[in-house]
Amino acid sequence: MTVLDSLPVPIVQAPMAGGVSTPELAAAVSQAGGLGFLAAGYQSAEGLRGQIRAVRRLTDRPFGVNLFVPGEQDADAEALARYRDRLEAEAALYGAELGEPVADDDGWADKLTVVRESRVPVVSFTFGCPNAAAVADLKRHASEVVVTVTSAVEARQAADAGADALCVQGPEAGGHRGTFTNPERLDDVSLLPLLRRVSATVDVPLIAAGGLSHGREVAAVLVAGARAAQLGTVFLRCPESGANPVHKAALTDPSFPGTTVTRAFSGRPARGLINRFVLDHSAGAPAAYPHVHHLTRGLRAAAVRVGDAEAMSLWAGQGHPFAVERPAGELVETLGAQVREAIAEVARRLART
Amino acid sequence: MTVLDSLPVPIVQAPMAGGVSTPELAAAVSQAGGLGFLAAGYQSAEGLRGQIRAVRRLTDRPFGVNLFVPGEQDADAEALARYRDRLEAEAALYGAELGEPVADDDGWADKLTVVRESRVPVVSFTFGCPNAAAVADLKRHASEVVVTVTSAVEARQAADAGADALCVQGPEAGGHRGTFTNPERLDDVSLLPLLRRVSATVDVPLIAAGGLSHGREVAAVLVAGARAAQLGTVFLRCPESGANPVHKAALTDPSFPGTTVTRAFSGRPARGLINRFVLDHSAGAPAAYPHVHHLTRGLRAAAVRVGDAEAMSLWAGQGHPFAVERPAGELVETLGAQVREAIAEVARRLART
Repeated sequence: MTVLDSLPVPIVQAPMAGGVSTPELAAAVSQAGGLGFLAAGYQSAEGLRGQIRAVRRLTDRPFGVNLFVPGEQDADAEALARYRDRLEAEAALYGAELGEPVADDDGWADKLTVVRESRVPVVSFTFGCPNAAAVADLKRHASEVVVTVTSAVEARQAADAGADALCVQGPEAGGHRGTFTNPERLDDVSLLPLLRRVSATVDVPLIAAGGLSHGREVAAVLVAGARAAQLGTVFLRCPESGANPVHKAALTDPSFPGTTVTRAFSGRPARGLINRFVLDHSAGAPAAYPHVHHLTRGLRAAAVRVGDAEAMSLWAGQGHPFAVERPAGELVETLGAQVREAIAEVARRLART
Repeated sequence: MTVLDSLPVPIVQAPMAGGVSTPELAAAVSQAGGLGFLAAGYQSAEGLRGQIRAVRRLTDRPFGVNLFVPGEQDADAEALARYRDRLEAEAALYGAELGEPVADDDGWADKLTVVRESRVPVVSFTFGCPNAAAVADLKRHASEVVVTVTSAVEARQAADAGADALCVQGPEAGGHRGTFTNPERLDDVSLLPLLRRVSATVDVPLIAAGGLSHGREVAAVLVAGARAAQLGTVFLRCPESGANPVHKAALTDPSFPGTTVTRAFSGRPARGLINRFVLDHSAGAPAAYPHVHHLTRGLRAAAVRVGDAEAMSLWAGQGHPFAVERPAGELVETLGAQVREAIAEVARRLART
């Protein structure tokens, strides 16, 4: 994959939907030699078009756009109704309205048109794999195509569809798991053994994602066979990040007892800090995406308005204690230097034995 | 730590109790430049003494012995009785007797005496941390001391007790988790982010364990900050391994749907292949170790006698699909060569950008 191979720093900034991945963040990362990403999810096609233009005003380096692939639109209506009933008390507490738990495809066709017309250098996909025709079409429009995978089976499917590279997402990653389905039981194979399984299955460049927060760990996944590492959580506290201040502060707040994977906010498995909402509602949340996302939208917005971390979705990967408040460009440069230092140190040590 | 720093190949063979870690396996690994380990658990102090002698007859290289640290001896009698009732039908099925679910300390004092008197080069501990006096005493008897830890908090405690090195065990690892307690909810931070947390907390050499099966992954954990990698599952199919043939065959049998962590066999969390016994009994198994170990002993032995993989404890880490049937010494040499190759390849690639 040309873009990956030409990166001065082998670091991809994870697309983080919901306003976190700003054009400023993506541009700062790309400008520093990494690969910045916009997240098309949850915004309008025209909003995305504007963000792409904004990135181009800030940098002439390559960048990427991530799209959610629409999946199964059916949901268990009874389970959804039960969950809605559970959440009524929450909504009352925050003076919020619950949303309509409807399905939608996140503007799939329109957003595909935008990235195609905009000739975005790298287009990545999450929650599924576009078909071979869609992949070929993007390639004809000068985009390199990355598919997010969480298992060797998904990797096989994505490689067969013609993906230029795969983003191998381990269970350590913050935010939504990119599984092609919405499985009851997640395959919990960690990033390193998952990389091994994927490497043994397909022969395309891999981007490793999940829980990475230091250049040493970036170097580790390179050595384990990845071409680059994708980091998200570590960028959340950058000034360019659109994460809200309560979320930023929570990441390094030791009073949160770590992270867990929950469907409580969106109906799809996602990793975030354990707060009251997660503890109260994870068990009752149905596998219904994006229905539950729409259902809880007003509730989450209300929690943000009052600054209550206990009812917000505090997406975070397992590296969250190490998220730093630093300009994204500086962070990319530091990570790049750490990568080289880590490799050189082990090379020296091995040379002595 | 002197032994770790002098290893020609930065690989530790994980101690695997229950007859798997034979003197032949430990000696072959040490002879090839790694660090072989005996497992004191479940055998008599005199049996252990004989195994130590056997290793010394086979190699003059350093090796290690692992001891189980006795923990909480209380167990919920009612929960145990309920679990016993559940297992009666299993026992009848296999014509086996359930054992007495009693507590014991695995011959702690006698085994400490054996390793002290035998001046074993490296003594490692699992399920807890010996007190500072015990650690100091072993060091006076020429042993270097390693404590297995699964969190930054445990790492702090072990470093404070005077451990020369820590074995940082990630959730990917096969067999028992080395947690100091028997927690209801396991901290599931993967090996790489766990290494980062431990490195940020203590300043002692680290051995990284969990799901590693290729020299690339060994190189990865070295780059991430470990001094060596500990591998267990990958040695299970070696001819020197004492694992029974049904267990060996199951590791690479695709009909098993992966691994999970269960208390069903021993009353303590341990990772193994998902089989019928695990599916039927994990939910009902109490946190009672070693009570449940003794309870299921006859049942497991009976399943082994009839070669039924569905009721055996098929301990396996997340790298199990890659366990190979090769002499252990050859495997260590191959892994060592892969480590050097992986580092050199990334160093070359970074030099080009």
